[in-house]
Amino acid sequence: MHELLELLRNAGIPPEEALEMLNSQLTSQLGFARVDTGRGVRAVLPEIILGPGKEFEEVRAVTGNLFSRIGLAIVSRVEVELGEYLLKAFPDGSYYRRGRIFTLGSDKADHRESEGSVAVISSGISDLHAAEDSAVILERMNVDINRFYDIGVAGIHRLGDILPDLRKCSVCIVCAGMDAALPTVIGGLFKGPIVAVPASTGYGTAFKGVTALLSMLNSCSPGICVMNIDNGLGAAAAALRILRGSY
Amino acid sequence: MHELLELLRNAGIPPEEALEMLNSQLTSQLGFARVDTGRGVRAVLPEIILGPGKEFEEVRAVTGNLFSRIGLAIVSRVEVELGEYLLKAFPDGSYYRRGRIFTLGSDKADHRESEGSVAVISSGISDLHAAEDSAVILERMNVDINRFYDIGVAGIHRLGDILPDLRKCSVCIVCAGMDAALPTVIGGLFKGPIVAVPASTGYGTAFKGVTALLSMLNSCSPGICVMNIDNGLGAAAAALRILRGSY
Amino acid sequence: MHELLELLRNAGIPPEEALEMLNSQLTSQLGFARVDTGRGVRAVLPEIILGPGKEFEEVRAVTGNLFSRIGLAIVSRVEVELGEYLLKAFPDGSYYRRGRIFTLGSDKADHRESEGSVAVISSGISDLHAAEDSAVILERMNVDINRFYDIGVAGIHRLGDILPDLRKCSVCIVCAGMDAALPTVIGGLFKGPIVAVPASTGYGTAFKGVTALLSMLNSCSPGICVMNIDNGLGAAAAALRILRGSY
Amino acid sequence: MHELLELLRNAGIPPEEALEMLNSQLTSQLGFARVDTGRGVRAVLPEIILGPGKEFEEVRAVTGNLFSRIGLAIVSRVEVELGEYLLKAFPDGSYYRRGRIFTLGSDKADHRESEGSVAVISSGISDLHAAEDSAVILERMNVDINRFYDIGVAGIHRLGDILPDLRKCSVCIVCAGMDAALPTVIGGLFKGPIVAVPASTGYGTAFKGVTALLSMLNSCSPGICVMNIDNGLGAAAAALRILRGSY
Amino acid sequence: MHELLELLRNAGIPPEEALEMLNSQLTSQLGFARVDTGRGVRAVLPEIILGPGKEFEEVRAVTGNLFSRIGLAIVSRVEVELGEYLLKAFPDGSYYRRGRIFTLGSDKADHRESEGSVAVISSGISDLHAAEDSAVILERMNVDINRFYDIGVAGIHRLGDILPDLRKCSVCIVCAGMDAALPTVIGGLFKGPIVAVPASTGYGTAFKGVTALLSMLNSCSPGICVMNIDNGLGAAAAALRILRGSY
Amino acid sequence: MHELLELLRNAGIPPEEALEMLNSQLTSQLGFARVDTGRGVRAVLPEIILGPGKEFEEVRAVTGNLFSRIGLAIVSRVEVELGEYLLKAFPDGSYYRRGRIFTLGSDKADHRESEGSVAVISSGISDLHAAEDSAVILERMNVDINRFYDIGVAGIHRLGDILPDLRKCSVCIVCAGMDAALPTVIGGLFKGPIVAVPASTGYGTAFKGVTALLSMLNSCSPGICVMNIDNGLGAAAAALRILRGSY
Amino acid sequence: MHELLELLRNAGIPPEEALEMLNSQLTSQLGFARVDTGRGVRAVLPEIILGPGKEFEEVRAVTGNLFSRIGLAIVSRVEVELGEYLLKAFPDGSYYRRGRIFTLGSDKADHRESEGSVAVISSGISDLHAAEDSAVILERMNVDINRFYDIGVAGIHRLGDILPDLRKCSVCIVCAGMDAALPTVIGGLFKGPIVAVPASTGYGTAFKGVTALLSMLNSCSPGICVMNIDNGLGAAAAALRILRGSY
Amino acid sequence: MHELLELLRNAGIPPEEALEMLNSQLTSQLGFARVDTGRGVRAVLPEIILGPGKEFEEVRAVTGNLFSRIGLAIVSRVEVELGEYLLKAFPDGSYYRRGRIFTLGSDKADHRESEGSVAVISSGISDLHAAEDSAVILERMNVDINRFYDIGVAGIHRLGDILPDLRKCSVCIVCAGMDAALPTVIGGLFKGPIVAVPASTGYGTAFKGVTALLSMLNSCSPGICVMNIDNGLGAAAAALRILRGSY
Repeated sequence: MHELLELLRNAGIPPEEALEMLNSQLTSQLGFARVDTGRGVRAVLPEIILGPGKEFEEVRAVTGNLFSRIGLAIVSRVEVELGEYLLKAFPDGSYYRRGRIFTLGSDKADHRESEGSVAVISSGISDLHAAEDSAVILERMNVDINRFYDIGVAGIHRLGDILPDLRKCSVCIVCAGMDAALPTVIGGLFKGPIVAVPASTGYGTAFKGVTALLSMLNSCSPGICVMNIDNGLGAAAAALRILRGSY
Repeated sequence: MHELLELLRNAGIPPEEALEMLNSQLTSQLGFARVDTGRGVRAVLPEIILGPGKEFEEVRAVTGNLFSRIGLAIVSRVEVELGEYLLKAFPDGSYYRRGRIFTLGSDKADHRESEGSVAVISSGISDLHAAEDSAVILERMNVDINRFYDIGVAGIHRLGDILPDLRKCSVCIVCAGMDAALPTVIGGLFKGPIVAVPASTGYGTAFKGVTALLSMLNSCSPGICVMNIDNGLGAAAAALRILRGSY
Repeated sequence: MHELLELLRNAGIPPEEALEMLNSQLTSQLGFARVDTGRGVRAVLPEIILGPGKEFEEVRAVTGNLFSRIGLAIVSRVEVELGEYLLKAFPDGSYYRRGRIFTLGSDKADHRESEGSVAVISSGISDLHAAEDSAVILERMNVDINRFYDIGVAGIHRLGDILPDLRKCSVCIVCAGMDAALPTVIGGLFKGPIVAVPASTGYGTAFKGVTALLSMLNSCSPGICVMNIDNGLGAAAAALRILRGSY
Repeated sequence: MHELLELLRNAGIPPEEALEMLNSQLTSQLGFARVDTGRGVRAVLPEIILGPGKEFEEVRAVTGNLFSRIGLAIVSRVEVELGEYLLKAFPDGSYYRRGRIFTLGSDKADHRESEGSVAVISSGISDLHAAEDSAVILERMNVDINRFYDIGVAGIHRLGDILPDLRKCSVCIVCAGMDAALPTVIGGLFKGPIVAVPASTGYGTAFKGVTALLSMLNSCSPGICVMNIDNGLGAAAAALRILRGSY
Repeated sequence: MHELLELLRNAGIPPEEALEMLNSQLTSQLGFARVDTGRGVRAVLPEIILGPGKEFEEVRAVTGNLFSRIGLAIVSRVEVELGEYLLKAFPDGSYYRRGRIFTLGSDKADHRESEGSVAVISSGISDLHAAEDSAVILERMNVDINRFYDIGVAGIHRLGDILPDLRKCSVCIVCAGMDAALPTVIGGLFKGPIVAVPASTGYGTAFKGVTALLSMLNSCSPGICVMNIDNGLGAAAAALRILRGSY
Repeated sequence: MHELLELLRNAGIPPEEALEMLNSQLTSQLGFARVDTGRGVRAVLPEIILGPGKEFEEVRAVTGNLFSRIGLAIVSRVEVELGEYLLKAFPDGSYYRRGRIFTLGSDKADHRESEGSVAVISSGISDLHAAEDSAVILERMNVDINRFYDIGVAGIHRLGDILPDLRKCSVCIVCAGMDAALPTVIGGLFKGPIVAVPASTGYGTAFKGVTALLSMLNSCSPGICVMNIDNGLGAAAAALRILRGSY
Repeated sequence: MHELLELLRNAGIPPEEALEMLNSQLTSQLGFARVDTGRGVRAVLPEIILGPGKEFEEVRAVTGNLFSRIGLAIVSRVEVELGEYLLKAFPDGSYYRRGRIFTLGSDKADHRESEGSVAVISSGISDLHAAEDSAVILERMNVDINRFYDIGVAGIHRLGDILPDLRKCSVCIVCAGMDAALPTVIGGLFKGPIVAVPASTGYGTAFKGVTALLSMLNSCSPGICVMNIDNGLGAAAAALRILRGSY
Repeated sequence: MHELLELLRNAGIPPEEALEMLNSQLTSQLGFARVDTGRGVRAVLPEIILGPGKEFEEVRAVTGNLFSRIGLAIVSRVEVELGEYLLKAFPDGSYYRRGRIFTLGSDKADHRESEGSVAVISSGISDLHAAEDSAVILERMNVDINRFYDIGVAGIHRLGDILPDLRKCSVCIVCAGMDAALPTVIGGLFKGPIVAVPASTGYGTAFKGVTALLSMLNSCSPGICVMNIDNGLGAAAAALRILRGSY
């Protein structure tokens, strides 16, 4: 066994991770689901439970299992009915209606001192669902965040107000719908990493966020990183990858 | 006949137009095409000859016919080979390579004194084909134009340079590709009518101008008018409609 | 400060606008939203509140704030439930079910004497939601409008009835769904500016207005300006840009 | 055998067709292709050879085989190079550059006396390739046709000129690109069957004929039949189905 | 006036139609709608009232108006709630749940003796909504129809059962969803005109009928006419155009 | 008759199938539906009843008819309400909520001894609806199956756990949504036939399974067979085709 | 090391494969490419070299390297110019113009005795490129194949001719373009596994094979496996997976 | 002036940038282009010249102008003909055929000591154009890079070879086409920031990189940042944003 671990280390896999790979005990088998409780060891985020497509009881069971093992369970895309169900099941949890997230517990480690902070920007009130999806998850991961909401391009002087504070942040998450011009404008004023989240705001040819996505992918400001539509969770993960690095 | 004209006038159709409607002599029959030489009487623009899909000789015949009757022939979407062919056939004409237009003659009337002027803006050099399509046609229609080229959003201070001159124009045509953020920004700084032309600039998800079109249709600045991709000609016609009005 | 204003004026920005740009007091901070109360000074329309994606109380708060400052609040895309909520909150307001608009107050200035009027045309009863979206907003902006509803191409003689009145208008807004042939036909009979609004009418390959949009963008009549699907509000703004110009 | 034929006739299949179905001799096996020489017996059109995707020699072999058996071979989508190759191989054939068709021989039967005629209409010169595709095939099938070319909606009085002749036809084929408003207008003036062919004319959002197709499928005039883009051949077949009926 | 009519007749417009064109009395103005009561004189179908997008009372008013003038009112796309409302308002009417049609009265003329009949075919029970849309309208127009339902390609022998009866019909309407292979197969067995209606049956990549539409447009059997998705009404109109011709 | 059968056998059709083809008694005519009770003789699966688009009573009638004749009725895409209705009508049946299937009876033949088994894999709990659609149908067809659920690529060591058991299976069905990377990874570890079912899991650019479908069609592992989105039924049929072969 | 192998075997990975996984010598490093020469040990097909996107010399180098190690190199998507270049470089190789494949050597093992055969069917001559892509690769893999070409649905009796031979095959590959009705028809007559390859044949709404793909994914015959457009290679791999199984 | 700068600094804009904003001298006006030579002061990358859509002489002029001012000119999307033209014009420049980049000079600053390095990974040789686009630009910006090419998922052990070196990098750029499964797999093994570039590799439903883009946007590994198709340049800019931060 030791020999194996040596061999694996030569292949660049650290022992603790190798152990985990082979140790199937870590994978707690719930019958209908294999909860990946060990993911936190090697991954950016603990396993996030996707709400839709599961029975309520299944969500409850997975949530309880995750929390009991790693002290933090996050359920995303939680509509009101499921949110209230979970609140009843776990009175210590929190349900965020706008961000459609339920959380129970929080990350044990706290690196806020040593890390930079994350700016979470939305271009309008209608994009808040995506922004709050990012913000709440980062808070649970003990990241220092700074919310800048309702910063549209049409009233561009609003952006001036926040520029000094924005430039103190290490990473910038921008949520915008419709023509999504905001990341392009911020991209010209902020030199650090920018993660853009297209919001499913608008109607007609907004195509539920597809236009915002395409606009962001073709931004005139180079180096804008783009996420799936309404994927605030993914933006939070990207920010964590940048803040906490590859080691 | 007089009675008929009276009747038609009661229906709101002026006599000269009624005459034209019934007078098939005006329609000069070339065998393969019915050139609409009378269109200038009631329409915004004289008939524009679309280059693609016609044999070279056909383009030449229609061009000559239009010019001999109304003194102005415009051929659009003219690739280099056809442009050179037409130049040989009509040495007095002009071929504009970037705008892909061939013109012979010009509008007889000159209202430049009494009319406002048109700003023609491009966000980059790669969008010039659409901008020149508008500019050349407006020049042939004796409109006073003002070119503002290479005014990208990424270098937003360039826009500041042109703002005073831009605000003196009555209509603004904006050509932009990629994420087409320029019309949104101009829309916040210029209160007059804005005609946006998506340019087929960019690659990948620029989708040959579709992304720019969608972005313009969803602009955060309200009241931006949108044209077909690369349709500088249409933008020129829209500007004429606005400048010369409905009478 | 004076020096700064001078400098800005040299850059083409009038003093009052410069003041506003730097004066963050104008931006009334409601916590979740930065209401752009100063927009009317330099923009075509006052800020329009988009109904969807906001909590009812948020819409109420922003509506009240806007009205108390500039005397006019317009909420768009207001479904019946929200409309009734707002009517209860602001008994002096008006809720337009078809146009899905709630308005409170109206524009203070009245230029109806000096301005031209706007024709608002719909091709069928099913397109009225878009037409009324334009018509109500223009009325609140004190524009003289003329409604021509249910003017389909299939019964083309209906168009003849309205032609004399239509030709007296300065701008023409045309709302049409399905194959959207109406703007093309009007484009041949009306020389002034035409703003076309594709309506999400029809089924199957009508694709919720996309076919109407594409048809309008490819109109055989040159110079038709196109808006986003069902965007009557945008058409109203475009008409205002044309009527009230760039100064 | 006789018994079998009886049985098949009871199932509604006429004896001669039943014979053909079982008689594999009719299927002349060329090695790489099974030419369907018997198709004329029961089908609307004899087999049409699609030019693209075949080697030149293959097209020549199939053409010769078809002609030698049924006296008529039609090759469609023939680009210039292949057209010249076929003309050299079959000097008695005809190559139609605009319609991209090569024909050798013609239908033996001539019902022109007893049948109605077909109107073939194009909205512009750029749509002629589709119209000629229909026209040439109908001519080879001995159908009486009437060409009405360059009848755009923009110059709607051109349509008036042709209305009396158009109304004498039994079927109307309309080829149009861009916004394809022509079939809708004709649909209101002509009560007989209309077959609409979207043409791949235009640029940008014309999407190579898709916009014309969608517009036709959503025509406000009810009962317009639609074909694939540029499918003049299909329109000819539809006209034959209508003219020659189901017996 | 007489002179005018002479003149119009020379242009190919029969006097009665000319009268109607100029006679605006025929257009009964209901305030919100211009009911086109005269359409039956020159059109294939009387005006069909589209249910969606109208208030219930509006549908009732237009229905009553049409019926009182021409004796036949047809409302399409009628969901159950509206259907029951109309039944209560017009107890003599009929509501067809599957075809989503409400009818009141019927066509006065009866040409069933002199005309051919129409086959209405569906490939499965799930496509019946489109087929019944055609069938009911044709019945109200006094056309002799023959229903052949649930004739899938998968059980191709079912087709054999109906072939003798099918071949006695003059026109064939085929409704099919999913891969829509049925029109192709019928196209090889039936020589008369075929009108194909793609049904919005299926899931996933059936894309609500788009796949069926595309399959029909690319049918290997030449001359298949295609309608909009679920447009049984249009197919009925096309059948009427073919049956009753252009005079 | 004998002669006919001989003839048909020469054409490769076995007598029993020929009999069935001509024997219309087998097709039991229910008025609104032609139930294809004989399909099991020559097809891979007995007729499956598609739930949506039928009235509840129709589903009940077809279910009862099929069961009384062949002893097995399967209804697919059964939402809860219909499921409960069918359970009440047929208390011996089973309703599978996740797979949305109702079954009554089962296949008579049992080849489980002689056949290989089928692995049914899902990448997450949210994809179970597709996987269960396959699993339940295969169980009713007496196929030996092995469920491997919640085997995501993100926690790739879970795959290691199941590899030995997976390799004992003859066919592998993989259901995955989002980026659908699982079939590619399995494709590199399992040499046998793989049938991939894209699941409509995810949001935004997951486009209801279209992204998963496209990803599977472009898999780097060669030879992955792809089904329609959520088409677990089709995957079961493909597995049966592979297991039970062509004889 | 032995211990490790034991451990891996417990995880279901056979020793020879484990060896290969850890043995990086097998991966021959060419500088710009890591040729996967060991793939044949555990994969369905040896590595196939994709022609496009590589320099000619690179293709030559990889081809030579693969051949020298495993005795078989296959290059796919080889246009004529590259094909001739490779023929010059490897005079013992074969270039198949229609299937656009270059092969050098062949599989060493020959299981033709013990395996079933594969039917390769094309619906028209224009689909042969996809069919030959499958056929040539299967031949190089020593699979017994049977070509059935030009079997269109329009002339459905051609299918009858081949049915007896088709039914003797173990797997059926069907290549079809346009409406791709052929796999549905074959799916009703052949009970074994069917792999459908959409061909990029046709024009307009054939959308370069997308329509054929969609039609196949929605086939009324259950259990049709679908490949990427023109992916004959993938169909060959799928056939190999079925023929040679999972061991 | 000083006062102004003070004021701007209070708004968070550093003096040197404010100076630049107002100093129009920096914008060197070339007639057809306004080269943004000052961009390097505040932006992530100096202005990159897009090759397509410009005349060769224009590209040459802008290149020379940029180089003379800031010592580094980069032209992207340079096809061979333009590359050779530029090499002749600037013999000290370098043309990279695969990455389609022309560079002249390099960044003056060298932070390689203090910064982390960037891993540039491609999944196949056919994706090298995108990877080299990133790699060359990063090299010119004096970033330490590490190329890992041809690391496909199909031969997953290749990834094991590079893992130790990969984990030493600070940022990871992954270029992949087809199903783009590579970023998902790397996302599970590398905790740092990952920038994914979809490559336009593949055929048919690869849709020129759209499938790879969609797959990346829906990656099961959270926090993958996505760029436009083939946008290696954008990935380089994103890496610079992450490495050099927001100050």
